Amino acid sequence: MGMTMTEKILAKHAGVSQVTPGQLITCDLDMVLANDVTAPPAIKEFEKIGKPVFDNTKIALVPDHFTPNKDIKSAGLSKIVRDFAHKNNIVNYFEVGRVGIEHVILPEKGIVAPGMLTIGADSHTCTYGALGGFSTGVGSTDLGVALATGQAWFKVPESIKVNITGKKPANICGKDVMLTLIGMIGVDGALYKSLEFAGDGISELSMTDRLTIANMAIEAGAKNGIFPVDEKTLEYIKDRVTKPYEVVSADPDAKYCQTVEINLSELKPVVAFPHLPENTHTVESIKEPITIDQVVIGSCTNGRLEDLAIAASILKGHKVHPHVRCIIIPGSQQVYLDAIHAGYIDTFIEAGAAVSTPTCGPCLGAHMGIMTAGERCVSTTNRNFRGRMGHVDSEVYLAGPFVAAASAILGKIATPEEVK
Amino acid sequence: MGMTMTEKILAKHAGVSQVTPGQLITCDLDMVLANDVTAPPAIKEFEKIGKPVFDNTKIALVPDHFTPNKDIKSAGLSKIVRDFAHKNNIVNYFEVGRVGIEHVILPEKGIVAPGMLTIGADSHTCTYGALGGFSTGVGSTDLGVALATGQAWFKVPESIKVNITGKKPANICGKDVMLTLIGMIGVDGALYKSLEFAGDGISELSMTDRLTIANMAIEAGAKNGIFPVDEKTLEYIKDRVTKPYEVVSADPDAKYCQTVEINLSELKPVVAFPHLPENTHTVESIKEPITIDQVVIGSCTNGRLEDLAIAASILKGHKVHPHVRCIIIPGSQQVYLDAIHAGYIDTFIEAGAAVSTPTCGPCLGAHMGIMTAGERCVSTTNRNFRGRMGHVDSEVYLAGPFVAAASAILGKIATPEEVK
Repeated sequence: MGMTMTEKILAKHAGVSQVTPGQLITCDLDMVLANDVTAPPAIKEFEKIGKPVFDNTKIALVPDHFTPNKDIKSAGLSKIVRDFAHKNNIVNYFEVGRVGIEHVILPEKGIVAPGMLTIGADSHTCTYGALGGFSTGVGSTDLGVALATGQAWFKVPESIKVNITGKKPANICGKDVMLTLIGMIGVDGALYKSLEFAGDGISELSMTDRLTIANMAIEAGAKNGIFPVDEKTLEYIKDRVTKPYEVVSADPDAKYCQTVEINLSELKPVVAFPHLPENTHTVESIKEPITIDQVVIGSCTNGRLEDLAIAASILKGHKVHPHVRCIIIPGSQQVYLDAIHAGYIDTFIEAGAAVSTPTCGPCLGAHMGIMTAGERCVSTTNRNFRGRMGHVDSEVYLAGPFVAAASAILGKIATPEEVK
Repeated sequence: MGMTMTEKILAKHAGVSQVTPGQLITCDLDMVLANDVTAPPAIKEFEKIGKPVFDNTKIALVPDHFTPNKDIKSAGLSKIVRDFAHKNNIVNYFEVGRVGIEHVILPEKGIVAPGMLTIGADSHTCTYGALGGFSTGVGSTDLGVALATGQAWFKVPESIKVNITGKKPANICGKDVMLTLIGMIGVDGALYKSLEFAGDGISELSMTDRLTIANMAIEAGAKNGIFPVDEKTLEYIKDRVTKPYEVVSADPDAKYCQTVEINLSELKPVVAFPHLPENTHTVESIKEPITIDQVVIGSCTNGRLEDLAIAASILKGHKVHPHVRCIIIPGSQQVYLDAIHAGYIDTFIEAGAAVSTPTCGPCLGAHMGIMTAGERCVSTTNRNFRGRMGHVDSEVYLAGPFVAAASAILGKIATPEEVK
């Protein structure tokens, strides 16, 4: 019986030839991830088991949420992770200043690859589906057990096929694709299902676009999001992935519970209004100007070099609106360095933006750009839940870097075409 | 009767020809400064008076302490400052991302100049004495009154002459000079007195050195610290200061209550041990290695281009010690940009340091590198009081950028000469 990509990867890691949706299985894990918020409780669970770590090369620990340490509490959490990493000789422990945001650096450093099964105690672990692997977020308890056993259980999800066709317009990026999709199916539209992307439009999407799209699979409730491996994927991983990996393709007769069509040619720049990522509106449909106080460009969703390139292309020669703070956060030290060499950081500083060291920062309301009551932010991050970036009476509008940069200049939600 | 520089500036601003130590005077102010922590209570006092601001061109407001906003509370404080600045058309309001740390940018932008009288609701306002002006920190209540009246009262301080002689060795910077001085006279050695620097050794000190030294006058308890204006000063202000200013010199028969001698040639790299800036030790006198967890290079004390140049010269081609977080914070957007162009930021990122957007951040335990119990930091900031950078059981060792960068590489307090 034909299987989807997700089913094939899960079956292989469960050591069986076939799985079907709804089936409960136990899988061997290729990579186990946690951060400064989720690792401490996972380590606590792990220590109850009393066994050594299952494989010190298959664990990634990234203190990225409240770092560089925001306060004494976060410093304490980071120390738990650091001490654990040193004690257990964790190869992929990334100290503050060494690398960056977990979901940016695991693909960038070749730590995740096609066909791999990755779990992470972070909901946006689904990012790595962009490379044709299965990856999903889990709770810290499951992660603690995984640290000791190298295994986790799954219910095989049903799969939704997202058929992507058409040509991508120049002012459209992965964020527009994904916010449009979530607007179509809703934040529970893919609840405990796999979003399996397919169609000849995929070749139009850069790896950055795909990473953004897979990253937000969870925002449609999906267990994971997964892309087929094509030439762009292979080009991306060529100089990054050094270990063996397996390219998995969906069987022609794989079963999907639903098919959704996205025609790239028809997409417009969009923004998700508060307080749900499904509240998608085209920017051109906004009648009354929505003035803003802050713009955030960065995060595991849109903190890659291409995102900063887009933002720089809009901000070049312009100034951030006097009433707006614009905070730009490269997703990794490599992105930061590349952005310096490409002149993007010059552009940002000259425009009057604050350029931060890599951190999750404001995305989850941690630090580095928190809002008080009545403030409004256009953000390239992934969630606009009430109070996500600060006060319960502040508002987050989700958008891609095109719209975010244009909005920073004009002081209201805007398309790049509105910037003179 | 002969007057010191401080006495002459105070007399002029009090509209009298002569002042003597101990005299109470009221002075007209040339510049009134506050930040995101101190402006909100000052604004509250100001509003009780019910008058307009005395001069919207003579007020500087810089949200730099808890910015980009660390949390909802700090976002609320920043909003009070922002709203006040917009409502009163404050010319020198510097939004997040626009400029940087108050005491770095006021000299950099030519907002302070020789002969000026500046007060600021921040203890390190004494920095501007480096340019030959009188500047001092005041409380928020005094500042609030000054916002309305443009005046403040002072008790004319006695003056201590600090006579600087000799040649500055290559591995010595302003921080070593000042920590050595504070070590000699103690943290109350200049209590409510003026530290008036003099001597032919001053020509050896760069403007960066002088800004560092004047910045820490308060750490010896001084009301202010002040340098004579020389060619270096005039060169520094040439393209910065556009308004008229007056070069004030001490009279030959000025009276000093004490004279302290500093011979630059004899200075060694020093570090101030916890928990007071007077606990000065030469690095070479440290017998047992003092291992460290963190290094901070930046702040109003040592966040200028020359400080970053020193740090980069040491870190170039080296890596931050695996057990150390190294956080580098340019003091302003201009410093940041210049440091990018000079290749310093490349060096820092390649070394594994976190490079932050300009902020006071960890210096006062606000954010961006807070420590938990048992952690130790070598920091180029100005205070190592108990708990200053986080937990009461953490420790701050004050040093200049030479020692800080060397320590980052070696994981222990070290001189540049120890870096291979």
